[in-house]
Amino acid sequence: MRLALGIEYDGTDFSGWQRLSHGRSVQGEVEAALSFVADHPVEVTCAGRTDAGVHARCQVVHFDTDAQRSERAWTLGTNSRLARDVAVLWTRPVADDFHARFGARARRYRYTILNRPVRAALAARFVTWERVPLDVDAMRDAAQALIGENDFSAFRTAQCQANSPMRDVREIAIARHGDEVAIEIEANAFLHHMVRNIVGSLLPIGRGERPVEWLGELLRGRDRSVAGPTAPSSGLAFLAPRYPAQWNLPAEVTL
Amino acid sequence: MRLALGIEYDGTDFSGWQRLSHGRSVQGEVEAALSFVADHPVEVTCAGRTDAGVHARCQVVHFDTDAQRSERAWTLGTNSRLARDVAVLWTRPVADDFHARFGARARRYRYTILNRPVRAALAARFVTWERVPLDVDAMRDAAQALIGENDFSAFRTAQCQANSPMRDVREIAIARHGDEVAIEIEANAFLHHMVRNIVGSLLPIGRGERPVEWLGELLRGRDRSVAGPTAPSSGLAFLAPRYPAQWNLPAEVTL
Repeated sequence: MRLALGIEYDGTDFSGWQRLSHGRSVQGEVEAALSFVADHPVEVTCAGRTDAGVHARCQVVHFDTDAQRSERAWTLGTNSRLARDVAVLWTRPVADDFHARFGARARRYRYTILNRPVRAALAARFVTWERVPLDVDAMRDAAQALIGENDFSAFRTAQCQANSPMRDVREIAIARHGDEVAIEIEANAFLHHMVRNIVGSLLPIGRGERPVEWLGELLRGRDRSVAGPTAPSSGLAFLAPRYPAQWNLPAEVTL
Repeated sequence: MRLALGIEYDGTDFSGWQRLSHGRSVQGEVEAALSFVADHPVEVTCAGRTDAGVHARCQVVHFDTDAQRSERAWTLGTNSRLARDVAVLWTRPVADDFHARFGARARRYRYTILNRPVRAALAARFVTWERVPLDVDAMRDAAQALIGENDFSAFRTAQCQANSPMRDVREIAIARHGDEVAIEIEANAFLHHMVRNIVGSLLPIGRGERPVEWLGELLRGRDRSVAGPTAPSSGLAFLAPRYPAQWNLPAEVTL
């Protein structure tokens, strides 16, 4: 039987999603907890790996098991074995050909910037600080140049292992809520560091150091070396992947 | 010269506001940082001490100094000496008879409950978890019994050192935002554990275990031993004290 799970985590104190020989990984801790509940070794496959310090509101994983447990027992039993900064949100039985990574048709991330004269304390784990007042309208105008299927080589880290630099960005929504500027990006999939690199080039535009047209020029130039720096991991959260309705998953991860 | 400062902190990893011989205290770390910038020992007086694990969006302190620094130098210099989970928001020169504690005419707290079937991970530091769906309307109706000047002995911890149990509660606002239920309480001042004890008695009403009238009965009975348990510290944040406009403080702490 194949099971899908929704997982939430505060990535601050993790070395990232991927299981490592040393250091805390979300994958390693989730697998250890699931293995205890299943009473056999479990390996999970996720919708999208996150880097060290990156959070998830609803990561999705799948794994196979013959263990008979209720959905409630999988969720609560696993949570009782997990540390305070990671939790299973739900568990659903899925068809054997469901795949958390290859089945996802869209993924949505949010990047949060604390935009005020002094650095964060309360929100320090979940934001990046920018002291210069940001022109959100300019950032929003600039971001429209990225919409559609494009070659995102300009916003891809050298370590990216994807076969193709082509990604289809469906939406970029940028809004200010008090001191916070939130940038939400939805695409079919993302290259490694793509959101943080896009944010790193939106910031100079927001600060007025670069014109609105710069982001489109960077995209067309396909040259990572001339784009802005990679924005810090703390501001980034993987909101959720989205799957076709046929899989019968919770609404938050269904197209 | 007397200075007032606004201070924000994530209380999770502190033993509370008050300076201790061992363990991290917000007061101790703020005083050490200010002493470095002032180049003389500094002791601060705060608007309201917070317990271990309780947060502050805008705590206010005052202290006296002969050191000549700009407001910006006090704020940024102190922040450069403070850990990631505490920050000075602003510094203002005030008249010598300003007092952070005795000058405050009102104080506002927020208590946040994560109300969903599974425990928190992302928000674990800032909420209390309640799995039973809460009836927010019943909680709101119940809370109205506390409005006005009343004897709050039923919601006061045995360790409370206040001379009088009388407090004037001006507003209790209870609202649901998605999975979160926020309870905001404003009063002239609070007894020790008063907010957490009120929340501890609102929860059984929200869960349907007690009738709406119960909260008013508890208040009138003035017996702490029959009221609900003290709600956990993680959900509590001191939003701000409020001072008369004469002190010329930032809008967020002015009546």
